[in-house]
Amino acid sequence: MSLEEFLGGFTERDWQHREEGTVRLAMVGMGWWTREEAIPAIEGSDFCETTVAVSGSISDPREVEGTDLEYAIDYEAFADGEASGAYDAVYVATPNALHLEHVRSAAKLGKDVICEKPMEVSAERARELTAVCERAGVTLMIAYRVQTDPATRRARDLLREGVIGEPVSVHGGMTDDMLSFVDGPDHWRLDPDLSGGTTMNDIGIYPLNTTRFLLDRDPISASGRTWSESPEFEGVDEHASFEFGFEDGIVLTGSVSHSACEESHLRVVGTEGQLLLDRPFFPGRSRELLVEREGTRSTVTFDQRDQMREEFDYFAHCLLTDTEPAPDGEHGVLDIRAIEAVYEAAETGKRVEL
Amino acid sequence: MSLEEFLGGFTERDWQHREEGTVRLAMVGMGWWTREEAIPAIEGSDFCETTVAVSGSISDPREVEGTDLEYAIDYEAFADGEASGAYDAVYVATPNALHLEHVRSAAKLGKDVICEKPMEVSAERARELTAVCERAGVTLMIAYRVQTDPATRRARDLLREGVIGEPVSVHGGMTDDMLSFVDGPDHWRLDPDLSGGTTMNDIGIYPLNTTRFLLDRDPISASGRTWSESPEFEGVDEHASFEFGFEDGIVLTGSVSHSACEESHLRVVGTEGQLLLDRPFFPGRSRELLVEREGTRSTVTFDQRDQMREEFDYFAHCLLTDTEPAPDGEHGVLDIRAIEAVYEAAETGKRVEL
Repeated sequence: MSLEEFLGGFTERDWQHREEGTVRLAMVGMGWWTREEAIPAIEGSDFCETTVAVSGSISDPREVEGTDLEYAIDYEAFADGEASGAYDAVYVATPNALHLEHVRSAAKLGKDVICEKPMEVSAERARELTAVCERAGVTLMIAYRVQTDPATRRARDLLREGVIGEPVSVHGGMTDDMLSFVDGPDHWRLDPDLSGGTTMNDIGIYPLNTTRFLLDRDPISASGRTWSESPEFEGVDEHASFEFGFEDGIVLTGSVSHSACEESHLRVVGTEGQLLLDRPFFPGRSRELLVEREGTRSTVTFDQRDQMREEFDYFAHCLLTDTEPAPDGEHGVLDIRAIEAVYEAAETGKRVEL
Repeated sequence: MSLEEFLGGFTERDWQHREEGTVRLAMVGMGWWTREEAIPAIEGSDFCETTVAVSGSISDPREVEGTDLEYAIDYEAFADGEASGAYDAVYVATPNALHLEHVRSAAKLGKDVICEKPMEVSAERARELTAVCERAGVTLMIAYRVQTDPATRRARDLLREGVIGEPVSVHGGMTDDMLSFVDGPDHWRLDPDLSGGTTMNDIGIYPLNTTRFLLDRDPISASGRTWSESPEFEGVDEHASFEFGFEDGIVLTGSVSHSACEESHLRVVGTEGQLLLDRPFFPGRSRELLVEREGTRSTVTFDQRDQMREEFDYFAHCLLTDTEPAPDGEHGVLDIRAIEAVYEAAETGKRVEL
């Protein structure tokens, strides 16, 4: 592609071909992520609005500022179909172990679903979640917001065009200081029954899934290790390292930690050059794309897009145009399988074939 | 330290406290690395000169341009002590499997040694190499040129001062297109008997050793994988991935390849920030140091120093001041042991405790 097209079209939604329509969303799970990231993003979106809040804590829609919320109901009322005329689809952002239950309720009501990643606490439950949606004939998208970020999509364009030659290796990492922003030591991510894994599962999924998206390839082997040092992380993984073998001999190596500064990157090295996605995984940070070919570098900064807004609009656009979302249930199950393999390798000390 | 000191002293040799003296070097092994990198660096050095060439191919000192070479002898003559009055120390840059033999000759002649990394083809032979020098009472330095690069040394200063808090994880990689610059498929790096390993051994040592230097810690566990695709690399490792566990729960993950573009990096993530050494491992490239603390970044570019010149001057300065070089034999042996563990893990599919 020409440099003019590349720069001029950097932030364009390559998936959008329709301008009108609205999808009304019920937010299932009203934790800080939904309140501080999802709802504000939807307020600025083109195709979505938040009409219903489902939670165990909010009973009055006026409690949620900055929305046109019509109803605030609890999980039982949601399962019973209360207010189901007021929304078209649901966003599931509860603790991982509750995804299946809420998706089941939504599917029974014929509502399409966008479900946070990781899909569930095990590949078995993730597969069941997919099957539930298939049986009910509702659309299921897994909320991989990095896939609709312009930097990620343009990086994939460059890879497909061979700008860095054939990909050889990928380096990825993501770290944050989880204890500084969750609600104390009883937070659900620290409970393996609710989370299915604390760090590899929660943030290891970012470099893994983004690599799959960029390379358009899936992992065929996995190894890794998990460990913990802080008492708050006793019995769960505070840190994890991973190595995924991909088709065509490509390797992804990296590590993640919930006890470090906020940092994220993904570097793809090829036979002719490299791409570096800088800060790709945190929604509020300025992302950059470094492109290098034959030793010459270009760093692309761009008019940032709200990752959550892009994601919700993509989901709604899929529903409005009767299109299957790219990150579907099967796509999500594969991540869970690969992450389970890392946990297995961490326990046995042995590589796992996928 | 103050910003003024940090920037003003960035390229200063923190190890130098003497201004005069000359060490005359015999270059043992006159391959492209010695001719194109080592000899030109010594020409511009403060404390070294090249007086003798030892090789199987050059018999007339006038064949080597741009030097004050006095003698060009073969390996047998070198072992017999020919021209030994014309040099004080030797630089050993032959295929890895021949290091021990040449170091033995040098030690017998009472000559101090700077020996290329990896030290030898096995930890056993590397230990013997160290012992040979100890028994003869000659100084042995392993040629880790990255350790005397200003960017690496300043990164270590920042780590020691806690600028990024406590280190948590390290990401490293190095790739090049080896077949494009070696002398055909019979090149010694492709012969495991001569090299001890083609890619992990040859370039995996860079992120490993630099991490050890920066963190002032050693690996306690290793795992990894090796694989090959190009026919030229049949039976040896074309690509390798590695994961080293360090003291204090720090992890180094990464990969190396001899069939990709030229790329190198080392990223240290801590509890308060991160350091990124950009292009640290290739001597001819402009290195940069990115420093980030609490989300604020600074990219340091600096007046580049010739890594090989810094290395040779450091070695000579050690000899002139009767100081033990930091990267000594024991330091080098540990890398070989750790790399052997990666090769072992690659074969068994199991993590190795060190």
